Amino acid sequence: MSVLIVGSIALDTVKTPVEEHSNLLGGSASYAALGASFFSPVRLVGVVGNDFPEAEFEFWKSRKIDREGVQRVNGKTFRWSGEYSWDLNTRETRSIALNVFEHFKPALPESYRQTDFVLLANIAPSLQSHVLDQMERPRFVVADTMDLWIETTRSDLDALLRRVDLLILNDSEAREMTKETSLIKAGRRIRKMGPRYVAIKKGEHGALLFGEEDQFFSCGAYPLEDIHDPTGAGDTFAGGMAGYLAGTVKKVHFNDLRKAMIYGSVLASFCVEAFSLDRLRNLSMQEITERYEMFKLMSQFEVPPA
Amino acid sequence: MSVLIVGSIALDTVKTPVEEHSNLLGGSASYAALGASFFSPVRLVGVVGNDFPEAEFEFWKSRKIDREGVQRVNGKTFRWSGEYSWDLNTRETRSIALNVFEHFKPALPESYRQTDFVLLANIAPSLQSHVLDQMERPRFVVADTMDLWIETTRSDLDALLRRVDLLILNDSEAREMTKETSLIKAGRRIRKMGPRYVAIKKGEHGALLFGEEDQFFSCGAYPLEDIHDPTGAGDTFAGGMAGYLAGTVKKVHFNDLRKAMIYGSVLASFCVEAFSLDRLRNLSMQEITERYEMFKLMSQFEVPPA
Repeated sequence: MSVLIVGSIALDTVKTPVEEHSNLLGGSASYAALGASFFSPVRLVGVVGNDFPEAEFEFWKSRKIDREGVQRVNGKTFRWSGEYSWDLNTRETRSIALNVFEHFKPALPESYRQTDFVLLANIAPSLQSHVLDQMERPRFVVADTMDLWIETTRSDLDALLRRVDLLILNDSEAREMTKETSLIKAGRRIRKMGPRYVAIKKGEHGALLFGEEDQFFSCGAYPLEDIHDPTGAGDTFAGGMAGYLAGTVKKVHFNDLRKAMIYGSVLASFCVEAFSLDRLRNLSMQEITERYEMFKLMSQFEVPPA
Repeated sequence: MSVLIVGSIALDTVKTPVEEHSNLLGGSASYAALGASFFSPVRLVGVVGNDFPEAEFEFWKSRKIDREGVQRVNGKTFRWSGEYSWDLNTRETRSIALNVFEHFKPALPESYRQTDFVLLANIAPSLQSHVLDQMERPRFVVADTMDLWIETTRSDLDALLRRVDLLILNDSEAREMTKETSLIKAGRRIRKMGPRYVAIKKGEHGALLFGEEDQFFSCGAYPLEDIHDPTGAGDTFAGGMAGYLAGTVKKVHFNDLRKAMIYGSVLASFCVEAFSLDRLRNLSMQEITERYEMFKLMSQFEVPPA
């Protein structure tokens, strides 16, 4: 089954302590769509300018990422530039040029309106809601968010939360949203704001999943020694989760979300191994499966003696 | 099989944002011994003053914690007082009085010298080494350490590491010891300093285990909403691990250490539910088993559909 993904599409400049690259494909929807595409066809919604490379459209086509919902507008594509700290744990935005994204109003093609699985990748919650308004009762809605929206458009976000099945956010955002220091309390509290399920990403510490009646799942992060560019890891995680669900599950249960979270983690671990989407572009399903098996190995503790 | 445990025995005063209690049983050996005692008999090595409550000796006896190795010396027992920050994540030492601990030199009773499993709970590395000097080739040596020894007695610690099978330390200590920001790099690097296995405790984020040829295990923390007193959690974790190994395993393999780490995590999660050792004193094996099963539930992702 297809998954509809809406979010930002950007051209990034990224500086780490060892490298700097410009004109990289970026944006929450770009990462999420490619992450999801390993498991299900994608219907992409976003906006690009006329400077956007034609080659990306071809690449999307080869990956069953439908771009009918991507508006091409006169002007420049959204541009973002960021710089990471020495340990890659924090980053500063150096510049933002919204360009064609400034007046972006997602308009769903007729053929997109009946899509069972939706991922509202990270953009303003009012735009995320606007996408839902145009849809005919989707079966499962995943939303990603960030600190900016918690701080600046909280009431929009609160309204959105009541329409979401799974909310994905990181640990500091969960704490900020609830004013709870305990992530366990924070996760359970966010569920009471609307989402049936909540996934909290903890970077190098893995992720937590909360469901009904204290359902709980915890997974570690893949043990990577070297990270080249953390950009887009969270978006890829969300895309992997949503794509796995859309591609494999009819009615979502907590146990499906466990596996979805592992696949999201697997894809995010590949994402950070290279700049932009480079590692994901040549990633094979076999590599994904191998790393999935490694996740099993690293979390099992009832295994037969060696 | 028995486990020999050496470490500090203290009387603590602990202040959290909501409560303050004095004259609590504390010290690394007290926590570790009680943690281990659920799985195997314990041979305890330490020192107390003549103010030490007789009732503790009785309690130890009831738990098969042998105190022949506990010296009773004229003077006062080691006293420690600490205060936790509002979120219980950091603490400050308010006062320390070493008292009889100042000139402590562990002397092993003849009957202790042949013990196959040893836990060198957190004390100065020179004292930990001194215990090993008196033993006849123990089969498996676990050592716990802390930032103080990394900073002040590094060469003693380095010498000890070459004699240790499993080193347990927390995330900030692992980073400090190796100057690596990546815990994966840090864990692998510490293995090259001597210990065949390394366990890194990450508090609310669980723990990591490193072994030969990139063997790796990651577990989450039990999802506790409320923590009353974090004191001794790490010591209890180490005690649970060492006790489980001594009580159940002949020759230690990586897969045994996985389970040992879960049992250590289970015991630590109970430890923090009350002040001092109070929760561990009335803990039942059934409660331990139930929480162990919960750990399975919260980390499994290949489960049959609900």
